[in-house]
Amino acid sequence: VDVVLGANQYGKAEVRMVTLDRTGERDVVRDLTVGIALSGDLEAVHVTGDNAHVVPTDTQKNTVFAFARQAPVGELEDFALRLGRHFAGQFAAISRARVHIAESGWERLDAHNLRRAGDELRTATVVADKDGAAFVVSGLEGLVVMKTAGSEFTGYIKDRFTTLPETRDRILATAVTARWRHASSSGDWGASFAAARSELLARFAAHHSLSLQQTLYEMGAGVLRARPEIAEVRLSLPNRHHFLVDLSPFGLDNDNRVFRAEDRPYGLIEAVLTRPDAPPPGPAWEPYPLI
Amino acid sequence: VDVVLGANQYGKAEVRMVTLDRTGERDVVRDLTVGIALSGDLEAVHVTGDNAHVVPTDTQKNTVFAFARQAPVGELEDFALRLGRHFAGQFAAISRARVHIAESGWERLDAHNLRRAGDELRTATVVADKDGAAFVVSGLEGLVVMKTAGSEFTGYIKDRFTTLPETRDRILATAVTARWRHASSSGDWGASFAAARSELLARFAAHHSLSLQQTLYEMGAGVLRARPEIAEVRLSLPNRHHFLVDLSPFGLDNDNRVFRAEDRPYGLIEAVLTRPDAPPPGPAWEPYPLI
Amino acid sequence: VDVVLGANQYGKAEVRMVTLDRTGERDVVRDLTVGIALSGDLEAVHVTGDNAHVVPTDTQKNTVFAFARQAPVGELEDFALRLGRHFAGQFAAISRARVHIAESGWERLDAHNLRRAGDELRTATVVADKDGAAFVVSGLEGLVVMKTAGSEFTGYIKDRFTTLPETRDRILATAVTARWRHASSSGDWGASFAAARSELLARFAAHHSLSLQQTLYEMGAGVLRARPEIAEVRLSLPNRHHFLVDLSPFGLDNDNRVFRAEDRPYGLIEAVLTRPDAPPPGPAWEPYPLI
Amino acid sequence: VDVVLGANQYGKAEVRMVTLDRTGERDVVRDLTVGIALSGDLEAVHVTGDNAHVVPTDTQKNTVFAFARQAPVGELEDFALRLGRHFAGQFAAISRARVHIAESGWERLDAHNLRRAGDELRTATVVADKDGAAFVVSGLEGLVVMKTAGSEFTGYIKDRFTTLPETRDRILATAVTARWRHASSSGDWGASFAAARSELLARFAAHHSLSLQQTLYEMGAGVLRARPEIAEVRLSLPNRHHFLVDLSPFGLDNDNRVFRAEDRPYGLIEAVLTRPDAPPPGPAWEPYPLI
Repeated sequence: VDVVLGANQYGKAEVRMVTLDRTGERDVVRDLTVGIALSGDLEAVHVTGDNAHVVPTDTQKNTVFAFARQAPVGELEDFALRLGRHFAGQFAAISRARVHIAESGWERLDAHNLRRAGDELRTATVVADKDGAAFVVSGLEGLVVMKTAGSEFTGYIKDRFTTLPETRDRILATAVTARWRHASSSGDWGASFAAARSELLARFAAHHSLSLQQTLYEMGAGVLRARPEIAEVRLSLPNRHHFLVDLSPFGLDNDNRVFRAEDRPYGLIEAVLTRPDAPPPGPAWEPYPLI
Repeated sequence: VDVVLGANQYGKAEVRMVTLDRTGERDVVRDLTVGIALSGDLEAVHVTGDNAHVVPTDTQKNTVFAFARQAPVGELEDFALRLGRHFAGQFAAISRARVHIAESGWERLDAHNLRRAGDELRTATVVADKDGAAFVVSGLEGLVVMKTAGSEFTGYIKDRFTTLPETRDRILATAVTARWRHASSSGDWGASFAAARSELLARFAAHHSLSLQQTLYEMGAGVLRARPEIAEVRLSLPNRHHFLVDLSPFGLDNDNRVFRAEDRPYGLIEAVLTRPDAPPPGPAWEPYPLI
Repeated sequence: VDVVLGANQYGKAEVRMVTLDRTGERDVVRDLTVGIALSGDLEAVHVTGDNAHVVPTDTQKNTVFAFARQAPVGELEDFALRLGRHFAGQFAAISRARVHIAESGWERLDAHNLRRAGDELRTATVVADKDGAAFVVSGLEGLVVMKTAGSEFTGYIKDRFTTLPETRDRILATAVTARWRHASSSGDWGASFAAARSELLARFAAHHSLSLQQTLYEMGAGVLRARPEIAEVRLSLPNRHHFLVDLSPFGLDNDNRVFRAEDRPYGLIEAVLTRPDAPPPGPAWEPYPLI
Repeated sequence: VDVVLGANQYGKAEVRMVTLDRTGERDVVRDLTVGIALSGDLEAVHVTGDNAHVVPTDTQKNTVFAFARQAPVGELEDFALRLGRHFAGQFAAISRARVHIAESGWERLDAHNLRRAGDELRTATVVADKDGAAFVVSGLEGLVVMKTAGSEFTGYIKDRFTTLPETRDRILATAVTARWRHASSSGDWGASFAAARSELLARFAAHHSLSLQQTLYEMGAGVLRARPEIAEVRLSLPNRHHFLVDLSPFGLDNDNRVFRAEDRPYGLIEAVLTRPDAPPPGPAWEPYPLI
């Protein structure tokens, strides 16, 4: 053997599904984007093109739609578990399924009309194994927040390439991507999500920031302290820079009044926080996409 | 002369400016994207590269920042008027200035912390002429709405390429882009905007839709009827298709339960509605970008 | 009547169609994105929701696919003419059709394998009227070019907000969007396109630039001078700024060596050039989308 | 301790740098996007906001610019090594640096004018450790290819959710993202890249595809077989679906003539291929971003 097949996975990405429930007083819309990745005994399809072990990605897509009709979607995590256990359990060659769902929120205008709530997404990722083990990660993306006071940045390393002035007072803004791993594969997902999100916002707002790293830690530790069902939190915080515009050429001061917002480059701050007694993550964080 | 220079304009696009006011009890953030386009006696710069009549786009950008420091931004329309009148008035060669501003909303968490409200934008466009005339267009983008009942589509032309079945009951969703021209260049812009937006939402929700064209008309006419200061409304409504998934191969019915949301292609429905006695639009709607 | 319906149009946008011809020695792929907009006697659908005059956008999409099967696509302009004349001619209520097509290029690797040529697009827009008149505009987008010498910017207006230093030597880069209107609705579209594109590139490269406006003029006038079948050229040139990085804090000079490329804000330079004896444009340039 | 800080990294992302060398007969432009991530002894900054160990991301950006002035960028991999070794070596607290560079190609029009070559990117990622070890991964993104013959998909699992018909003849298209790890941290990067890219294209074109997994394997194995300096290849291949349009309602057949190209959902096929005697990857593939 001159070439070894290592980690591999395949599946359908970005299945856009909207479900509607009009059985109650007010219509309920769920707006989901579902992605699936399967792995297992897939050597033959790679090496010889024998598809006998392949569940087509088209079938994966169909299954998402059919499952949503067979029973209500319910909590994201539960729907991901249903799908994940199906794919990992139903096909001899498939030993592991990863299901990722992102949900857009809609606010009600009245019983039959809604407005999309913005671009923040609630997410759930489940990795289900053939032996029945399942790992559940919840999260959110696109939560854009700003501190207009209570943020400084001083005391950092200066070398010959440093030009950044220290500041005791700056705007700090970020778009939160957060994922948190649950200790168990069952739970009250909705309540847990609401509380975790609320804690992220509260900690961001309440603390005095000496660096974005510290802000990240405060937010993540806050979630772990508040929610015993959560074993691990991962945060990815881009620093959305707001630079003071130099108005002195125009005879104007600028005491934190006028900023230019810059798209690129941006700082990116990331960390993993865990409870000391967290159960092992198993395959919960295996990379997707792989590269 | 073998080549004639026709319409032309130039300017700085997408100046990202954030302003902060911490003088009150609660900090106020304004998050603006400003674009400027100037026109006038610009034959020489095109034909010979003589820049004597050119206000550099870099200077235009500086002016946006300086103006925001010299006095509060205030209503979008007023800030656009300040900028437009400056550029059209201050430079002999520049006879017309177009200023477009898009604002992102931020919701307060507390006195010093905010959360971005979503991806809906409030917009204002001003065209200011050297003679002092100014044309004001207000608007919004990214208002995504959905009717989960009360929408049908029947009675249309059938030809040999028609396969679409008629329906008495469908999901109707769109992302509203609206622009409305004011009869006057002064007004209570904030109150007018809030009322117009509210009317768009109310008419969308209240009416029974026989087509997206009718929905558009209801929304636009509603604004004209409710707001005497508005002379003209333009709406651009993409039909965000939600197609019923055929679940019959799986032995499942699908009575408006499970839909796939499709990105492309999409229907696009556009129209102009005016008050019969609307003053002429002047250059209010001149295209930008030009192509 | 308290509300007047003005300009309006509707249609299917962004129909993604790929055609394959395997009848020759080497397979031929065409990769098109087609958009259609119809207008005419559409008062009723707006005001009362009566769809009797509406050709559904779904049917428009079907027609694109069917026409491509009935006869080869051929030149973009010809395919747009076929579609436009069909929609404007076939339905009593529809008096005008606009068809826009953008094509991605693919380069051959061998008889049955291709590589996409990049993100530049060739475009064609046809406006066809019920009376048989048709207006043809050809063009391109995403042609990104750079001058690394032979570009200056001096002699412009200085006011109190000017900080930009004059320069005799700068990088000039832009992403060309060009549209050119043909004097006639028939022609050798392929040869004309190749020659016009080539002229745009040649003029960009050959001239010494005193401003981006002058560069635009050189490019557009070059096309008009070289191609008698072209009556009018419109160019939209974003100035993709490359700013010299100030390396002096690090004891380094920077004589046009190291630049930061900035996404936003950017200058935007636009103009229309016509032949003095150009036939009138008719509806060739009516805005799409409307706002 | 109630919260444990796990993996963490921070740095500047998407530094857009263009360098120009006009010392030769023809100007040479390099168009790079550089991202840096540092890790090490960063507990204090997270837990207490003590920045004494922090090299600001602003300084990281400055360093990229300064390094490009101090010596020519040269091969991407070498520039990433210079930067990575600087950050990992220069600061006591920083034990590891990850540098990722993506380069856009430009084609020459003449000595002083260029055209951007498309949206394909050449990439290099270096992870440098304080002890001097360095891991080099090269790659590319956005290489879009299509097989118009020689692709089938049959023999897969059918279950109750399967509707996809088997096919002996389909369009197969993908946008290749490839990364390959070098066995050594020195090499002739340019020659290696050119050969690896060429092999990817040649294998894609030459083989008869029974599935996209097999195509992936052929491409990756081809690189490993052709290039002894490469220890591992990772490929991520989205299946850019081209669905045959059903033209039978219009009385037309469609023998692989007319397709609709669909954006979402899409299949995603990923795998890792290694040489049996490949040296261990060390931190070469540590995830970035972390989530």
